[in-house]
Amino acid sequence: MTVLHGPNLNLLGTREPHLYGSTTLAELDEALVREAAVLGMAPTCRHSNHEGVLVDWIQAARTEAEVLILNAGGYTHTSVALRDAVAAIAPAVPTIEVHLTIPEAREPFRHGSLLAGVVRGRIEGFGVDSYLLALRAASALIRARGVDNRDQ
Amino acid sequence: MTVLHGPNLNLLGTREPHLYGSTTLAELDEALVREAAVLGMAPTCRHSNHEGVLVDWIQAARTEAEVLILNAGGYTHTSVALRDAVAAIAPAVPTIEVHLTIPEAREPFRHGSLLAGVVRGRIEGFGVDSYLLALRAASALIRARGVDNRDQ
Amino acid sequence: MTVLHGPNLNLLGTREPHLYGSTTLAELDEALVREAAVLGMAPTCRHSNHEGVLVDWIQAARTEAEVLILNAGGYTHTSVALRDAVAAIAPAVPTIEVHLTIPEAREPFRHGSLLAGVVRGRIEGFGVDSYLLALRAASALIRARGVDNRDQ
Amino acid sequence: MTVLHGPNLNLLGTREPHLYGSTTLAELDEALVREAAVLGMAPTCRHSNHEGVLVDWIQAARTEAEVLILNAGGYTHTSVALRDAVAAIAPAVPTIEVHLTIPEAREPFRHGSLLAGVVRGRIEGFGVDSYLLALRAASALIRARGVDNRDQ
Amino acid sequence: MTVLHGPNLNLLGTREPHLYGSTTLAELDEALVREAAVLGMAPTCRHSNHEGVLVDWIQAARTEAEVLILNAGGYTHTSVALRDAVAAIAPAVPTIEVHLTIPEAREPFRHGSLLAGVVRGRIEGFGVDSYLLALRAASALIRARGVDNRDQ
Amino acid sequence: MTVLHGPNLNLLGTREPHLYGSTTLAELDEALVREAAVLGMAPTCRHSNHEGVLVDWIQAARTEAEVLILNAGGYTHTSVALRDAVAAIAPAVPTIEVHLTIPEAREPFRHGSLLAGVVRGRIEGFGVDSYLLALRAASALIRARGVDNRDQ
Amino acid sequence: MTVLHGPNLNLLGTREPHLYGSTTLAELDEALVREAAVLGMAPTCRHSNHEGVLVDWIQAARTEAEVLILNAGGYTHTSVALRDAVAAIAPAVPTIEVHLTIPEAREPFRHGSLLAGVVRGRIEGFGVDSYLLALRAASALIRARGVDNRDQ
Amino acid sequence: MTVLHGPNLNLLGTREPHLYGSTTLAELDEALVREAAVLGMAPTCRHSNHEGVLVDWIQAARTEAEVLILNAGGYTHTSVALRDAVAAIAPAVPTIEVHLTIPEAREPFRHGSLLAGVVRGRIEGFGVDSYLLALRAASALIRARGVDNRDQ
Amino acid sequence: MTVLHGPNLNLLGTREPHLYGSTTLAELDEALVREAAVLGMAPTCRHSNHEGVLVDWIQAARTEAEVLILNAGGYTHTSVALRDAVAAIAPAVPTIEVHLTIPEAREPFRHGSLLAGVVRGRIEGFGVDSYLLALRAASALIRARGVDNRDQ
Amino acid sequence: MTVLHGPNLNLLGTREPHLYGSTTLAELDEALVREAAVLGMAPTCRHSNHEGVLVDWIQAARTEAEVLILNAGGYTHTSVALRDAVAAIAPAVPTIEVHLTIPEAREPFRHGSLLAGVVRGRIEGFGVDSYLLALRAASALIRARGVDNRDQ
Amino acid sequence: MTVLHGPNLNLLGTREPHLYGSTTLAELDEALVREAAVLGMAPTCRHSNHEGVLVDWIQAARTEAEVLILNAGGYTHTSVALRDAVAAIAPAVPTIEVHLTIPEAREPFRHGSLLAGVVRGRIEGFGVDSYLLALRAASALIRARGVDNRDQ
Amino acid sequence: MTVLHGPNLNLLGTREPHLYGSTTLAELDEALVREAAVLGMAPTCRHSNHEGVLVDWIQAARTEAEVLILNAGGYTHTSVALRDAVAAIAPAVPTIEVHLTIPEAREPFRHGSLLAGVVRGRIEGFGVDSYLLALRAASALIRARGVDNRDQ
Repeated sequence: MTVLHGPNLNLLGTREPHLYGSTTLAELDEALVREAAVLGMAPTCRHSNHEGVLVDWIQAARTEAEVLILNAGGYTHTSVALRDAVAAIAPAVPTIEVHLTIPEAREPFRHGSLLAGVVRGRIEGFGVDSYLLALRAASALIRARGVDNRDQ
Repeated sequence: MTVLHGPNLNLLGTREPHLYGSTTLAELDEALVREAAVLGMAPTCRHSNHEGVLVDWIQAARTEAEVLILNAGGYTHTSVALRDAVAAIAPAVPTIEVHLTIPEAREPFRHGSLLAGVVRGRIEGFGVDSYLLALRAASALIRARGVDNRDQ
Repeated sequence: MTVLHGPNLNLLGTREPHLYGSTTLAELDEALVREAAVLGMAPTCRHSNHEGVLVDWIQAARTEAEVLILNAGGYTHTSVALRDAVAAIAPAVPTIEVHLTIPEAREPFRHGSLLAGVVRGRIEGFGVDSYLLALRAASALIRARGVDNRDQ
Repeated sequence: MTVLHGPNLNLLGTREPHLYGSTTLAELDEALVREAAVLGMAPTCRHSNHEGVLVDWIQAARTEAEVLILNAGGYTHTSVALRDAVAAIAPAVPTIEVHLTIPEAREPFRHGSLLAGVVRGRIEGFGVDSYLLALRAASALIRARGVDNRDQ
Repeated sequence: MTVLHGPNLNLLGTREPHLYGSTTLAELDEALVREAAVLGMAPTCRHSNHEGVLVDWIQAARTEAEVLILNAGGYTHTSVALRDAVAAIAPAVPTIEVHLTIPEAREPFRHGSLLAGVVRGRIEGFGVDSYLLALRAASALIRARGVDNRDQ
Repeated sequence: MTVLHGPNLNLLGTREPHLYGSTTLAELDEALVREAAVLGMAPTCRHSNHEGVLVDWIQAARTEAEVLILNAGGYTHTSVALRDAVAAIAPAVPTIEVHLTIPEAREPFRHGSLLAGVVRGRIEGFGVDSYLLALRAASALIRARGVDNRDQ
Repeated sequence: MTVLHGPNLNLLGTREPHLYGSTTLAELDEALVREAAVLGMAPTCRHSNHEGVLVDWIQAARTEAEVLILNAGGYTHTSVALRDAVAAIAPAVPTIEVHLTIPEAREPFRHGSLLAGVVRGRIEGFGVDSYLLALRAASALIRARGVDNRDQ
Repeated sequence: MTVLHGPNLNLLGTREPHLYGSTTLAELDEALVREAAVLGMAPTCRHSNHEGVLVDWIQAARTEAEVLILNAGGYTHTSVALRDAVAAIAPAVPTIEVHLTIPEAREPFRHGSLLAGVVRGRIEGFGVDSYLLALRAASALIRARGVDNRDQ
Repeated sequence: MTVLHGPNLNLLGTREPHLYGSTTLAELDEALVREAAVLGMAPTCRHSNHEGVLVDWIQAARTEAEVLILNAGGYTHTSVALRDAVAAIAPAVPTIEVHLTIPEAREPFRHGSLLAGVVRGRIEGFGVDSYLLALRAASALIRARGVDNRDQ
Repeated sequence: MTVLHGPNLNLLGTREPHLYGSTTLAELDEALVREAAVLGMAPTCRHSNHEGVLVDWIQAARTEAEVLILNAGGYTHTSVALRDAVAAIAPAVPTIEVHLTIPEAREPFRHGSLLAGVVRGRIEGFGVDSYLLALRAASALIRARGVDNRDQ
Repeated sequence: MTVLHGPNLNLLGTREPHLYGSTTLAELDEALVREAAVLGMAPTCRHSNHEGVLVDWIQAARTEAEVLILNAGGYTHTSVALRDAVAAIAPAVPTIEVHLTIPEAREPFRHGSLLAGVVRGRIEGFGVDSYLLALRAASALIRARGVDNRDQ
Repeated sequence: MTVLHGPNLNLLGTREPHLYGSTTLAELDEALVREAAVLGMAPTCRHSNHEGVLVDWIQAARTEAEVLILNAGGYTHTSVALRDAVAAIAPAVPTIEVHLTIPEAREPFRHGSLLAGVVRGRIEGFGVDSYLLALRAASALIRARGVDNRDQ
């Protein structure tokens, strides 16, 4: 399983804490690894501010991961390139879109997600708990694979 | 905890199963009760096709529940009345918006949610698992109450 | 066969007769029953001003009727819930959308129909004759069933 | 005279008091009855969260009332059914639209009123005083009836 | 009575039969003549791919026909010239708009009809049966002429 | 208290009387002075067709009046300058927006009011009675001052 | 000089006379020839309901006329082909756009003119006098040619 | 007859001559007076950069003029106040809208005219000749008064 | 193979040569025949300014050609009829859309192509070379037919 | 050099100081004169709430000033008349647009500036320092005149 | 000559082959080199998922190439930076825009191309043949250079 | 102080000099360092075509600079990621947005700035002088820090 953090998420815990909470990215990644271990998973967590690097990593997830958890940050609303990468791996690797806040509750330019049409599910608004819920969702998707991924 | 199912969710399992899966509403409610018991919660599950009835029940949740899980179905996109009810109880009872599919991945008239600005979080696209993930999110919200509901 | 009259149609014959004619709803229902008898059908006619009640009745039509004739009145343009109900029964029971006037010839907020994508056909602008034409259309659909409802 | 309170107005005095004030609905109705008595009127006050019930009551006002005072709450912006009901009684019973706040000063989805084209007048932004001013407006309309309702 | 078939309807039965059915235009015209005879009418059926020719024929219908049945095909959505022609004959000859499918259920550029404001009624979605229902509607309009065409 | 009449209101009683009634501006001002006297107020009534003059007078109201009653006529929909002036005096002097008709029931370019976000209340559609109702509203605001103008 | 009448103008004098007046097209053409003779011009007047024929005639005007007077009727708002033809002859032959009514005062689909960017001038709203004024404008353009058509 | 020149027209002949020509406003007014004398009319020509002054003068035209020729310049596209003034005098005094250029051929913010719905006719694109053509149109309107101003 | 030239292309070489070049249509057609001969093809080249004639010819291409090269000129952006004709022949005969310039680089009304959804490919911006490139593309499509036209 | 202050700027220092600061207009003008003196310039500072007066003054700047500094306040977003005046003097006198705040960061009706296309530069968001920076920009423009104002 | 492949094109042949075909990027580049050799050209082919890298390479093409062939993938619709780079080199090096599919036939967010206004030509919809056709177009542009690149 | 130059600014002086002037980026940076030294500042100037690199550098400015001067070039209009980075450092380091031209005076896709809501001020249209003015603005902000950055 791969977890990708998009632009400015490296500032987590220090940037606008009333919006995003006070947990740092390192703490979040530790929590993810710890919680994933309980579910028998070992996530690789990566961060980049670069759209192209995120595209590279999403492509790489096709052979490296069973599920992708993606918080694309500001690129969620503007990047056709990210969408195309997620669509390209979708037959093999489902993606779960994650947000700390609910983008549609914020400025109008955050209301549409280019990812909506190509991800498997979406969790938003629970702060860092959004990621932990995504872990559980990922775990369920992996377990269900044997059964229903034919109709993906 | 209250779980509210909006219009047409009583057809779950029988209506467009390629979209919504084959679990019935009764089975879903049973699963919710069972899973909630593990987390120490006892949800009341209700369904109505009537917008006004849903408004009544949301208002009632203010005194009957700690958290509200709400799948407003088609009313999600058109009901200012539901939004106002959710906003009215929000200081006391947070709401988690749930969807079986990702509405933004479907027809344009499903892209906007009037609830987005007043709910605490949103989970969508995981079929009936969306509800189970919401249970966990609700449980976390209740546990965190003692700590951070001052800045709600 | 079920015939459903939506909001304010109980005022038929008394409300804005220059727009809607002077036949009352009771007279219309009698005409429908009489005309349907000629075609070997016995329609159940119902009226409600309540969106939720209409959703309930549309769902019920799945097991009670071969065809649904629906004049959703003002809900035509705003109710995703009604659309979802019509879509849910569509594989089993086709719906014919009926209007006394031509909504697209009136105020802009009546120009779009949320039902358009899920009904089988649409008849509008002929006053109460719209219903009688719908009866004939329904009769033809039922006769054709044996032949072409596979590709519904 | 009929006074209709739409969705969530039963929460008056308890819901977001910084927006809506601290008078309860019961207190408001008492004030209305008391003030109306001074003007020689005896209003019937009703509340419902149900769009269909409000449509039923508006229709009933045609024979039960000389003027209708209507706060349609969230349905103001989305209900073609309510508009059609108000239009249907308009030749006999004028409607006065009332709001506690000024909807156009709030979120964009509250900016348009489907009722605007069919009501006689509109009073908004004065909190519960909006209703009391509407009482006076209603009284003036009734007195003027003998004189100018020909060109209605 | 004149029946006008617009652009590409000469391909009926051979073009996208899953959308338009397998009846050819010649067969449809025969059915129309046969069915009309039963109702005591003798329709003139014409087809053209040319907007200007259709305008000429609509104008001619003013003196040649009692009712016009018009399937304007792709011109429905773009031709102000056709609309103006229909409007010009409307006081003398009502027009019934016919479509094999429901345009509003298809691509966005088919959602608006420039004819909506000037035709008497509209029937759509029943395949070639749309025309047969229009025949009946035309017959009813002609019979009702003596009675109510004053307020046309 | 200041009452400001915007562009073309000097034509009151002579211009389109079916829309605006037959009372002249002089008669209206007399009625306002008379009615205000009953309530213990002495309004200054002014008219101008000039946007800049209205801005000057609104600014002057900050020191000359306790409440401003403003019918900005056509400037309601286009003048950011008027809005800014009303906003500038709002902490000291609340403004009541008045209209003879309901602008939102008329042409689309009258549907939005730039004043909506900065006035205290709005009364529209009652002809010259709109002003008289505004007098009462003003009186109530002045009486309530001592109590609740802290949270203005 | 060429005068082109677009679709439905052959109905002039008989179609909606409250909108278009009672002069027939033949009478208008006679008046144009008579009035033009006074100014020393001999216009060729043509009518067609066919967009393609109008394009042909506009192209022909490049060698046959000094000025083109064009009432494109309904094609004004939808025909890029007409616009391109007018643009093609513009360096040699200026076009004057003429309308009996003011299209922008009518339905929204008549508000934009594709010709606006390529014609020399526009006269509208004077009924058949629009043409007679265009004659004078044409005469002035021809006289001015020797002087200022360099900067065309 | 009154001729009103709106904002910046005092710069005529000196401002952007490639757009507006080299005739000055004084020269234009002289030409208007001279040409009008031939037609038996004596126009009063006025210029102002002030919207309110133009409103005052339009109102004055009701008693001072038989026809109003109006070039509202930049106010054409933004002034509801001017529109209302023109509408107010329209039953008594028709207005002819004049422009030197064709606004719809320029920037998008010049495409709509708020005057379109209330003026009698419109002439644009002929430079100062637009005014001279308007003189002739005015003369024809005055002559036709005796005949057809009943249906104004 | 059929090559269709739409409205105003007969002016090629004479109309706005800075935009469209100086080759005439006759020269272009000769070049097409010459170049096609090299590739073993014998194109039929036709031009019309008439939308209906173009529709007729597109329909005819179904039995007369293996590939259609279409420059629909101004009809590209407005003709649903042309689109439907291209769609009707698409299963048998693929269409290549050609433009001398890049429409999306010009006025906004040229930005959308109704043909985009039904053609096989599109070449634009190379002047008359656009056609020659289309010839090569057509040749490749014909050669590939044996291989991949199953999934058309 | 002329400095023009538009509507409501006379309230500077007293109106919404959290937005606009506490410097008064008189103090600002003094600072401008003092600072300009250092740069060898002597600005004339004027304020008006009247759009027409501002147009008059902008026109006057053509002969009275080398550079115009303009804060058009609320007219920035709505006044075509101001834009046309600025454009008229632009070949002789460049204009610098100044704002205390960043309009695009405020309400949507402040997002577009009609002046953008005709001013030389724009400075916004620095409170009264915006003016002082504009002074320096003006000084640089005047010094550069000798060199590059040919390509203006 | 430089050929640039944008985001996700490295997945060619493996990603959604029903849309993009089964040729890999390596095979495409080989075909390009081979085919170019025939035309006497030696293209440099590069791929990147990074917008900034593509901008760097486009800038480099100004001195390294005679023509640029660019498939910007998802950046086509969103990157002003790419557009500006293409515009910057356009006087020296023309760009040919290439797409495997026709973007305007797909999702709405792919309908507009920011490159349209700055490229020389565009080829789309022919799968990998789009590139081969672009090679030929590039070859023709280079040959024509001596003749007509003055008016670029 | 950090100065960041966005995409394509490395071409300054060589790219479209009629738009951007003939100063190179190196010369600009030298001028900035020289001018800043006078004001007692030592700016670090950086350029990148990569959105992600710019995000990295903006984040770094939080600890490395007192003020950030940012010309984000084409990313100004499309990058939510840049906006979020600027917002993240805003409490500590104010940003001044700089442009050589006035984007709102150019193509529509340059009209909106995603940065507008998060920067302190904006200077545009003065060519390289925009940067020098920004230096002065930065200097003033730093000096004022001690006084008023509490209410930032």
